[in-house]
Amino acid sequence: MINSKRLLLAFSFITTSIFLQAQLTVNQARLEKRIMDLAQFGIQENGQTERVAFSDADLAAQQWVISQLKEMGLETHIDFAGNVIGIRKGTDPSKKPISFGSHIDRVPNGGNYDGCVGSMAAIEVLMILNENKIQTKHPLEIIIFSNEEGGVMGSRAIAGHLGKKALPIVNSTGYSMAEGIMRLGGDTTRITEVARKKDEIAAFLELHIEQGGTLEKEDIQIGIVEGIVGLAWWEVEFTGFANHAGTTPMNARQDALLAAAKFIVAVNEVTSSFEGAQVGTVGKIKAEPGAPNVIPGKVVTSLEIRDLSLEMIEKVYEAIKTRAKEIAKASNVQIELRPLDTTADPAIMTAAIQDEIASSASQLGLTTKRMPSGAGHDAQDMALIAPTGMIFIPSKGGISHSPKEFSSATDMANGANVLLNTILSLDKNLD
Amino acid sequence: MINSKRLLLAFSFITTSIFLQAQLTVNQARLEKRIMDLAQFGIQENGQTERVAFSDADLAAQQWVISQLKEMGLETHIDFAGNVIGIRKGTDPSKKPISFGSHIDRVPNGGNYDGCVGSMAAIEVLMILNENKIQTKHPLEIIIFSNEEGGVMGSRAIAGHLGKKALPIVNSTGYSMAEGIMRLGGDTTRITEVARKKDEIAAFLELHIEQGGTLEKEDIQIGIVEGIVGLAWWEVEFTGFANHAGTTPMNARQDALLAAAKFIVAVNEVTSSFEGAQVGTVGKIKAEPGAPNVIPGKVVTSLEIRDLSLEMIEKVYEAIKTRAKEIAKASNVQIELRPLDTTADPAIMTAAIQDEIASSASQLGLTTKRMPSGAGHDAQDMALIAPTGMIFIPSKGGISHSPKEFSSATDMANGANVLLNTILSLDKNLD
Repeated sequence: MINSKRLLLAFSFITTSIFLQAQLTVNQARLEKRIMDLAQFGIQENGQTERVAFSDADLAAQQWVISQLKEMGLETHIDFAGNVIGIRKGTDPSKKPISFGSHIDRVPNGGNYDGCVGSMAAIEVLMILNENKIQTKHPLEIIIFSNEEGGVMGSRAIAGHLGKKALPIVNSTGYSMAEGIMRLGGDTTRITEVARKKDEIAAFLELHIEQGGTLEKEDIQIGIVEGIVGLAWWEVEFTGFANHAGTTPMNARQDALLAAAKFIVAVNEVTSSFEGAQVGTVGKIKAEPGAPNVIPGKVVTSLEIRDLSLEMIEKVYEAIKTRAKEIAKASNVQIELRPLDTTADPAIMTAAIQDEIASSASQLGLTTKRMPSGAGHDAQDMALIAPTGMIFIPSKGGISHSPKEFSSATDMANGANVLLNTILSLDKNLD
Repeated sequence: MINSKRLLLAFSFITTSIFLQAQLTVNQARLEKRIMDLAQFGIQENGQTERVAFSDADLAAQQWVISQLKEMGLETHIDFAGNVIGIRKGTDPSKKPISFGSHIDRVPNGGNYDGCVGSMAAIEVLMILNENKIQTKHPLEIIIFSNEEGGVMGSRAIAGHLGKKALPIVNSTGYSMAEGIMRLGGDTTRITEVARKKDEIAAFLELHIEQGGTLEKEDIQIGIVEGIVGLAWWEVEFTGFANHAGTTPMNARQDALLAAAKFIVAVNEVTSSFEGAQVGTVGKIKAEPGAPNVIPGKVVTSLEIRDLSLEMIEKVYEAIKTRAKEIAKASNVQIELRPLDTTADPAIMTAAIQDEIASSASQLGLTTKRMPSGAGHDAQDMALIAPTGMIFIPSKGGISHSPKEFSSATDMANGANVLLNTILSLDKNLD
């Protein structure tokens, strides 16, 4: 009896302790304030913020993050790729780090949430652990990735596949990646040294806004990302014959814009004709000579196809190509589809990590949905070298990459709480 | 008998004289050389010529024309709208002038023929009359119109409807019409003084290249223009919602470019669905934000409809508007069609002048076809104030407004001969 009573007491202690720990939560007001403070870096007269990677605002925000990490007692440095790295020591020297983070750079005319939520939540998580004097067995590593929006530069470097071809690419600041890395305090001559081996990180977690409207529409608090879709880009050129719009009869035209219009309609029809969540988009178009009274002789458009399966991307593309051939013939216009070197393979998130996220959310009483990510993320590259998981929170109206982008403080705190508790459960359950 | 013999002799003399006069022809080699000489004004390193209105090349060519007119003994001046005017006196002081001419300015990246053929042929006609010491009863007036390509500026001024709104319009030289008029030697403060009353010109004739492929395809030497089509322009704005192309499902999009593409296809279908020679064109398109990975939220296109009948233009437009409404509804995209202030009413060429051209061509043994002009011309405005006719010659491949534009020396000489002989017959037959 005594033994069993002791056992019951002991068990009760353990469950209470787990229960308390699972309920550890971040400071919502402080997280929200930190998001607003970050939005000051690059703020314009019109109240909107511009903070493209490599800009002065990006560099200032990077230094502001570093000062906070140092204040918390983290070993902090900028790696050769311009990533900010902060290490909080663990109690077990044999353990590999549990890493987490996101990015603070933004697209031109972007919003205040995007990668900022995951970055500021990562700092908040570390602060809560400090305040609650919680030691983890694993070292905890915060990574604020450099230049996510301009080609997931920092995470590609860590995953060991930032090719030399990428370095001359110039973003809207006017700096190339090479110049930007130097500005951020990296070193292009030593960039390959930042690449991690496959067993160097115990797990990687990224919290991010959904950038779509699914969670909001279905009134769900947490998205558990199953995978990040792959994408392929093409440049499509339509060559007809420019001629006088007044003197060329309708049946004698080689109208490149008419052919392009038929192609755009076909891309939409074909992509929607297959079962699944694949998307196909024409976002860019240029018609030459581009005068109201001249039949366009040349049009160039973009084509993008995304899906979790490479096979589906290929299937949609082949069907679009078939339609393009029919349109070319019917319109007496040449159509050429040229693949661009920007293809990203789909990245599947680690099933066990998905389950840990689900369990943490459930213990916090939050509703969840497993879903693909239509957007690319740093987690996509980290998945190549570490067990990886992603946590989504709702985006108001599904809007992203826009000053209208918004996630509520409650949703941000929910996401940060799931991140915090998933880190703690991974610390327990991982080797 | 004697009387009747005399009458016969006299009649025979008259017919012979008419016959000889009808066969009077221009100097083909000299006309061709003058076309090549004119092409030197604005010639570039690549061998192509740039001579947009108001450019240094345009001003130099204007002075070159003036020196030729003065050499021929014409009373020559630049009017307040920058038109070059040369008068060859007639024998009957009571007669109003027979006017003819065209323009020497060119579109950017244009060709050597366009208005140049009619302008150089007009000089050649005057030279032949001088060499053959032929006096006309009517004064002959050559007009080289200013800035035809940038809005038929000079002819609108002469027709009395160059509005003040047009003066600030800037062309590719960077000069506004107001500045251009001053550069050409005109005077914007006195521009209304160049307007002619309806009975001041006995007749106006313009020789021009067809700018279409009908004459060449049907192997016809001379086109007799029945009328110049009217045209109306609209700006069409498509307002959807810009969003992430990766995270927005196909069925949740408000894709402004997809709606614009359906609209472009509809413009083509609707315009071709009516009997007739009407044309409808979308030549200009801009999609925003214009990135391959963003669904376009806003697209602006042009819309142009041309026909000889205003009713047909209206009918086609109404049918396009109906389709636009359906597309807007189905695509969840707003479509707004805004009329632009560039509408030109159709201009019917004077039937009696058409007959004179037909008769002159026939006496020269040339094949003819009556046809509309799909392009606008100075003759369109001159038709508002004078009995007007237009003579077309074939354009190789129907190409115009392009460095590939070409008309053969034989065709140019045929056109100049018809111009010459129509002037002479009008001089006989008109009051």
